[in-house]
Amino acid sequence: MSDHLVAGIEPPYYTVVFTSLRTEGDRGYGETADLMKKLVEEIPGYLGYESARTPGGLGITVGYFRDEDAIAAWRSRLEHQSAQRRGRAEWYESYSVHVAKVERSYSFQRGGTGEPADS
Amino acid sequence: MSDHLVAGIEPPYYTVVFTSLRTEGDRGYGETADLMKKLVEEIPGYLGYESARTPGGLGITVGYFRDEDAIAAWRSRLEHQSAQRRGRAEWYESYSVHVAKVERSYSFQRGGTGEPADS
Repeated sequence: MSDHLVAGIEPPYYTVVFTSLRTEGDRGYGETADLMKKLVEEIPGYLGYESARTPGGLGITVGYFRDEDAIAAWRSRLEHQSAQRRGRAEWYESYSVHVAKVERSYSFQRGGTGEPADS
Repeated sequence: MSDHLVAGIEPPYYTVVFTSLRTEGDRGYGETADLMKKLVEEIPGYLGYESARTPGGLGITVGYFRDEDAIAAWRSRLEHQSAQRRGRAEWYESYSVHVAKVERSYSFQRGGTGEPADS
């Protein structure tokens, strides 16, 4: 799981919102997730990700990409495609994917300048 | 926290991705979060939300809206503005907000028709 926020990227960029409910047990999920985190770093235009999972509940992973080409490059990675197939076969009860173009963004940091730059 | 996936909305629609790191303790956060969930339901064009938080770590809430007007209506709710101010004063170490237009989406349900409709 990520433990930092992705902030400060200049729009426009893309986000891929992946929300999921897992099956029981690990079944090799953790190992593959770690591999995917490494591989996606190699994609030109990959900007970062954030991930959270409520224990026993919903998981949300948000990936950030500069443009559609970067998303397409990640989608076409064979290891990613293999992981997706295994996800459907073993790891996920259900998932949803939303591919979206970020039009604006802002952030807050305690002890920073106070109000967000945009709202 | 939500425990269901938002799926099946026809694009285009908007998503607001809110990622955060909390301060220690509840400080009235839970009560206000419950109130916000009720109030946002009253916004015309609000389509749903998903939320997850890794214990002691990152939280991600994703809201879905039909259009920019719906987002603007939610942003202008006084109770929401008050909660945002209190969030900066008390509840959040840091947060980021990404407002994005969803161009495509797809979903998977175990025991469903197998392959996602789109990829």
